[in-house]
Amino acid sequence: MMEFDLAPMCVAARAAAGQLAAMPTARKADGLRAAADMVRNRAAAILEANAQDMARAEQGGLTDALLDRLRLDTGRIDAMAQGIEAVAALADPVGQRIDRSERPNGLVLDRVRVPIGVIGIIFESRPNVTADAAALCVMAGNAAILRGGSEARASNAAIHLAFVTGLESAGLPRDAVQLVPTTDRAAVGAMLAAAGAIDLIVPRGGKSLVARVQADARVPVLAHLDGICHSYVDAAADPARARAIVVDAKLRRTGICGATETLLIDRALPDPYTIVAALLEAGCELRGDADAQAIDARIGVATAQDWDTEYLAPILSVAMVDGVGGAIAHIARHSSHHTDAIVTEDAATAERFLTDVDSAIVMWNASTQFADGGEFGLGAEIGIATGRLHARGPVALEGLTTYKWLVRGTGQVRG
Amino acid sequence: MMEFDLAPMCVAARAAAGQLAAMPTARKADGLRAAADMVRNRAAAILEANAQDMARAEQGGLTDALLDRLRLDTGRIDAMAQGIEAVAALADPVGQRIDRSERPNGLVLDRVRVPIGVIGIIFESRPNVTADAAALCVMAGNAAILRGGSEARASNAAIHLAFVTGLESAGLPRDAVQLVPTTDRAAVGAMLAAAGAIDLIVPRGGKSLVARVQADARVPVLAHLDGICHSYVDAAADPARARAIVVDAKLRRTGICGATETLLIDRALPDPYTIVAALLEAGCELRGDADAQAIDARIGVATAQDWDTEYLAPILSVAMVDGVGGAIAHIARHSSHHTDAIVTEDAATAERFLTDVDSAIVMWNASTQFADGGEFGLGAEIGIATGRLHARGPVALEGLTTYKWLVRGTGQVRG
Repeated sequence: MMEFDLAPMCVAARAAAGQLAAMPTARKADGLRAAADMVRNRAAAILEANAQDMARAEQGGLTDALLDRLRLDTGRIDAMAQGIEAVAALADPVGQRIDRSERPNGLVLDRVRVPIGVIGIIFESRPNVTADAAALCVMAGNAAILRGGSEARASNAAIHLAFVTGLESAGLPRDAVQLVPTTDRAAVGAMLAAAGAIDLIVPRGGKSLVARVQADARVPVLAHLDGICHSYVDAAADPARARAIVVDAKLRRTGICGATETLLIDRALPDPYTIVAALLEAGCELRGDADAQAIDARIGVATAQDWDTEYLAPILSVAMVDGVGGAIAHIARHSSHHTDAIVTEDAATAERFLTDVDSAIVMWNASTQFADGGEFGLGAEIGIATGRLHARGPVALEGLTTYKWLVRGTGQVRG
Repeated sequence: MMEFDLAPMCVAARAAAGQLAAMPTARKADGLRAAADMVRNRAAAILEANAQDMARAEQGGLTDALLDRLRLDTGRIDAMAQGIEAVAALADPVGQRIDRSERPNGLVLDRVRVPIGVIGIIFESRPNVTADAAALCVMAGNAAILRGGSEARASNAAIHLAFVTGLESAGLPRDAVQLVPTTDRAAVGAMLAAAGAIDLIVPRGGKSLVARVQADARVPVLAHLDGICHSYVDAAADPARARAIVVDAKLRRTGICGATETLLIDRALPDPYTIVAALLEAGCELRGDADAQAIDARIGVATAQDWDTEYLAPILSVAMVDGVGGAIAHIARHSSHHTDAIVTEDAATAERFLTDVDSAIVMWNASTQFADGGEFGLGAEIGIATGRLHARGPVALEGLTTYKWLVRGTGQVRG
């Protein structure tokens, strides 16, 4: 077995981060465009590597869903290159002034955004994360240390090689993006323990990966473990709007973290049946509390566990609640603080919900499926965070920066 | 020995935090003013408790410095009450809109500041921290769980009792501020392990406390371990200004984290002697590298360890460097990323230093002793952070908040 030492990678990353931190926006963008070009130019080599991974995965009996995530084709490679180019076109947060104040003694204080430093990305089967996460880190002036899953190791290596060759051709440091050269699980442990050497870890993958990272990391983590999202239909909801929102929130794509998993219905809603019927007719299994079951015989029984379950499937738990207060209380108990929505025409009720629901994203008259950095206009996202510090909700370039205080004086002493 | 269970305190804190999060600014401020009044009204009881702590501490042989930190008198109690009132007068960050955007589909996105939730404060001998930290937490809408040191246990209990009695008299939840009822060290361990129940830990105390908290916490921590601050005198510095700044930065108070610990002198500085002489004459011990020792025979020898030492005393290490580039390189190796300053009349050199030095606070022509929330106009500070996430430098009310996304729609579905 290969001996793996993370420390030299961290030292190289820190040095690269120092160069990137001081680099003008145009140079970073040029570097990323060169990386995108190189990914396209080396499509054949990337596809060949991917074919090795696919062959091994098929022998290993991976599920069709996992095989699909792993598979690359020229369309997907081009999409990856376009993704890098899209990041290169984003506004650069580095150097932005957050605020300025002048003190009575004449000191002028600015808070300006600066890169975080060294970001560790730990991800699973989708090899496109290699390019995607690396591009976001570099554009925000950070060095990235990537650790991909073993299934995609050849694909990741080929994409990484193309990416850094492109960066280097444009004069950026090759160590701006490093790929951990082993898929040994101990490498993940080393990254999670690297407090001071890695400044932030972003896990991208399934729940067991995220849970392990959150449990073991000695380095700050941005992530969400669950997306137990709620849609609440208030008595004052417009019926057609409520039906359209709820069906979209649950069923547009059931496998994403912003999909609604629990429908809360105000007991005072005049006609809950049409919403329930629309869901059932669209093929959704419903599991309700006793009162919800009374709406339609096709609604099954929800157990206590259902209220805390992220189905990621066409299954929805349904609870009847006493108005917006009841909805807020249910959400406080069961939400994963990702995204929760209210449907109502009553602005005061909506504002109460927006204020009192303590989630990263709270919506009024919109589908929870909009919980996405692209939909939020952030251009791309490194992930969605449900923790309470640093950044919440979709995290993009700004979330990959921190700030420092610049104090300009004219000889002031505290005396 | 008393069995201590943190969990019920965390549950009570979470409930109180929910009430505080939705509370208007005026009610929080009223609560804090009532707490300040009660601290003044109960001064006799607080002093009696403090006398018990002092008696025990004197028997226990505490140093004079520690005894002074522990000691309360009516002046100090009044200062504590004034500190609470000052926090009550600060602008409330909760509900502030950070930004707004409208998407092409008509969704309107606001990011608004909200409290973090439950904050754990772990502190040592100074009993005034009880009131001070509690006031900041409450004003930012957070519940606080305080754990003070055993030396001050009677004082802390008396101050806490007065504080929460005041809060309650104004209709605020008593559990907004709880004091851990044991000074057993295991209580600290329980707080550090309480991920999900406590959202943030702020240690206030000596280096060994901070080091333990940083090493063991499973909860995010805002803190600084060291304040190894540098002042760099560039060749283009004004001599009189440089002398005044350096003497103040080192000697105004030597025991604070913003005190300069290393002086960097540009080899091209025409007259380094006057600065060195001013420091020596003011009673400062200097330890220099070989070139620095050549300036004056009274400069002693700096060992490798001196460059990484926070003296907190009238001792200063002195290194000669090759211009601003040499200063930046020295700082990158040895700074604790707290506060570093340049003295120069050359604006371009200053801007290079401000950009390239990666510390929470970077100063130009000012004393590093200004590194303080009060001096920064923040009104008060819960501490100074040298980590890279969430908040850097002096942390006050804004640093005790996070944000959420509010999305207002008119029936948008992702479709």
